[in-house]
Amino acid sequence: MTSALEQLRVHLATIRDLHDTVSLLAWDQRTYMPLGGANTRAEQMATVSRIAHELFTSGTTGHLLESINVADLPPDSDDARLIEVVGYDFEKASKLPAEFVARQSRLRGLANPAWQHARAESDFALFQPHLEAIMDLAREHAQLLGYTDHPYDALLNDYERGLTKDQVAALFEELKEGTLPLVRRIAAQGQTGRDACMHGDFPEDQQEAFGKLVASHFGYDWSRGRQDRTAHPFCINFGRNDVRITTRFNPQWLAPALFGTLHETGHALYEQGVKPELSRTPLERGASLGIHESQSRMWENLVGRSRPFWQFFYPKLQQHFPERLGQVDLDTFYRAINTVQPSFIRVEADEITYNLHILLRFELEVALIEGSLAVKDLPEAWNAKMQEYLGITPPDDAHGVLQDIHWSGGMLGYFPTYTLGNVLSVQFFNHAVAQHPQIVDEMARGEFGTLLGWLRDNIHQHGRKFLPNELVKRVTGRPMDAAPYVQYLQAKFGELY
Amino acid sequence: MTSALEQLRVHLATIRDLHDTVSLLAWDQRTYMPLGGANTRAEQMATVSRIAHELFTSGTTGHLLESINVADLPPDSDDARLIEVVGYDFEKASKLPAEFVARQSRLRGLANPAWQHARAESDFALFQPHLEAIMDLAREHAQLLGYTDHPYDALLNDYERGLTKDQVAALFEELKEGTLPLVRRIAAQGQTGRDACMHGDFPEDQQEAFGKLVASHFGYDWSRGRQDRTAHPFCINFGRNDVRITTRFNPQWLAPALFGTLHETGHALYEQGVKPELSRTPLERGASLGIHESQSRMWENLVGRSRPFWQFFYPKLQQHFPERLGQVDLDTFYRAINTVQPSFIRVEADEITYNLHILLRFELEVALIEGSLAVKDLPEAWNAKMQEYLGITPPDDAHGVLQDIHWSGGMLGYFPTYTLGNVLSVQFFNHAVAQHPQIVDEMARGEFGTLLGWLRDNIHQHGRKFLPNELVKRVTGRPMDAAPYVQYLQAKFGELY
Repeated sequence: MTSALEQLRVHLATIRDLHDTVSLLAWDQRTYMPLGGANTRAEQMATVSRIAHELFTSGTTGHLLESINVADLPPDSDDARLIEVVGYDFEKASKLPAEFVARQSRLRGLANPAWQHARAESDFALFQPHLEAIMDLAREHAQLLGYTDHPYDALLNDYERGLTKDQVAALFEELKEGTLPLVRRIAAQGQTGRDACMHGDFPEDQQEAFGKLVASHFGYDWSRGRQDRTAHPFCINFGRNDVRITTRFNPQWLAPALFGTLHETGHALYEQGVKPELSRTPLERGASLGIHESQSRMWENLVGRSRPFWQFFYPKLQQHFPERLGQVDLDTFYRAINTVQPSFIRVEADEITYNLHILLRFELEVALIEGSLAVKDLPEAWNAKMQEYLGITPPDDAHGVLQDIHWSGGMLGYFPTYTLGNVLSVQFFNHAVAQHPQIVDEMARGEFGTLLGWLRDNIHQHGRKFLPNELVKRVTGRPMDAAPYVQYLQAKFGELY
Repeated sequence: MTSALEQLRVHLATIRDLHDTVSLLAWDQRTYMPLGGANTRAEQMATVSRIAHELFTSGTTGHLLESINVADLPPDSDDARLIEVVGYDFEKASKLPAEFVARQSRLRGLANPAWQHARAESDFALFQPHLEAIMDLAREHAQLLGYTDHPYDALLNDYERGLTKDQVAALFEELKEGTLPLVRRIAAQGQTGRDACMHGDFPEDQQEAFGKLVASHFGYDWSRGRQDRTAHPFCINFGRNDVRITTRFNPQWLAPALFGTLHETGHALYEQGVKPELSRTPLERGASLGIHESQSRMWENLVGRSRPFWQFFYPKLQQHFPERLGQVDLDTFYRAINTVQPSFIRVEADEITYNLHILLRFELEVALIEGSLAVKDLPEAWNAKMQEYLGITPPDDAHGVLQDIHWSGGMLGYFPTYTLGNVLSVQFFNHAVAQHPQIVDEMARGEFGTLLGWLRDNIHQHGRKFLPNELVKRVTGRPMDAAPYVQYLQAKFGELY
């Protein structure tokens, strides 16, 4: 006689297989699928997603959940946490009627090409009616999910369970206060050309070889992963034993692929590190987008843009690009990769100004959801905030309000998780170094075993077992705290400028 | 109000999406999946296959089929044929209890690694108990499917609907009589080294470039396909708009990748040519394995090993490999690619002896299924037949009875479709040339539009709409006939030897 828990595990494993299958369909779509396959692939993805959704929201899930008495299980056990997470997901999924999900999917399917077209033409008016519909849908979405204080809370929760608009606002207040004067001081210096050495001839195969070298040193397991090329880099996985990253190479600019590879490797290390016991369960993935981003940002910035890291790797980088970097010294290179420069495009922004790009989006999203800002007035509001926070005005909508894909996919409440990741990356890293000061010396020897081991023990292995807030507290003994991040930025860039 | 037919189409499209998804999981497994992903991938494939099977054998399919009156539809219409084919598939699938399917899947899962091990050790005894179980299962399979005259008919039917053991036996009788004297006469000449120019340095990238050139000339649509590298070449598709081939390159031997690419391109042209109206239905694929093989063999042999083809392509091949082939004349090359030489390994056999390899397997399979041959006596029986038909005795089991993967996967009744393909390739080709004599001249100019157009009109577009026997008759006006194939072999190789 199989227990209800065992039956639930089998049921969830089936659903998990289907989700992982959708991920493979998506990976192939973005890597190797011939163009002609696009329409059929969309049907295949819709079919498998729909079946997964139907199975999950079916009576079986609810019935099995009711049959299990969580009180019989140790509260911190994998099983107890599995039941809790599945119960939460089930309740949330059950709040969205099939009609709404279908309408949402259709609307997003239309909005994305409209956004692409609008961006290509740099004409917001082409996207405006779609964004208006997206906003109506987001408000409806928030109503269906429910909230206590503000509809934006419901949207945030979709990506970062437990996070509220007020928490995000307080976080940004602290960041603004702590970094805006620094950004203004640096901008006032009017320095240009500090990153000149990052531009020039950087053959793609050498870029790829160096990226693989670093990822291998980090501890990325190539027997459970691989790297391919795509227009937009990402990390995707089909279980913990098949975690893939992608990269885009610019043969004339070293930075994007180099730091992109470090960033995606950070995501991949997290997924490869989930403990095997959670395989084929809904816990076999990162705790939240913010926690995930804390890992990618840590490897990209706290490790990959640090002095100790380059003490070891810079001579190797020079060997890969002797013509371009042979005569450039470490200090010049270190200053180049840490250039601060207000700019229009978020994904190209430096460590400090990046958060101002996010702040701007957060404030605009809240205003749009509240209705205090009309979609038609969005470009003007965007440009005003760019002037306020970064002191520059985009030349056109393509370099401003139309630059990101997120809104066309209905992703409202997503952007703040990027800054959350930045904040947590420092909180986690500082804690790891406090417990294991040798981490910094190891970095200067190209060794990362202590850092990765600490992340595995404290964060990776648990997958989605703990809520993000709870995990932060378990790991660092404190709630999320922006102060260490602000101190890090002030110390690092105060020295550089 | 949606009609039952429309509902059935939607139901079948869902199932088709799932089958195509399993194919993508398999393609990735064989091309890019990291080793570590193997176990989870097996689970994913099993899950999606199981759901597809459950949906197809569910009450919905049966109920919808019953609700449709086929008599209301024009008998040759796509819809009428769809109902007929689905009814047949449904009845067949319903004959196999879930318990049997699961047992079969488990047994095959164990037999395949045992076969790999046995082949590596060249020790049949390691595989024998598994093959005994496979044979018991095949007999049970035949009983469940049902048959009139012979259990082998039921197994054949699984791959080639409507074909019987007696038909296959008669076909082979004709082939044996028509080609065995020729094989013996050639062997008696004792010529060696005719294919020396096919061995040597053939850089892989040049092999790949030449293969792509030929495939493009054939009419392979790269916007709906691609080519990757795998240990064993294959063609696979996820609908008609995403039809992929794979190739293995041997940098020291030109033949395998060259003719392998032409062969797989032949399969791919068929799948790309199914008419769009059949998309996401069970008719969107080749009519049978035999018909499919007729396409691959036609492009590989009747086109790709013909004199006119090489009149156009040989100078281009020489340009790809100037060092190896620059001094080899067309006639020497033509004789090299058409070398006849009795050999141990089926997949490396020439056009004539290939069928003797299949004949041997067919006779052994029938005897094993009947029980007139015990599995333990199989190696001896194999070697005796090799001596009888090819005049050679394998040095060990790895070069004999253990060479093929098929039996370890429970594929009994599959081998004859290879020879069926050879026979039909000539029957179809001769008919095409009789109607359009310019096909041969076009080949000598590197043009294949008339041939491909004829195949599209007469064979490809219909997908699985017609039964194999019916299709042959519709296209050529006659039932399947081995005589043209025998005449072709006698004429071609009579001239060469």
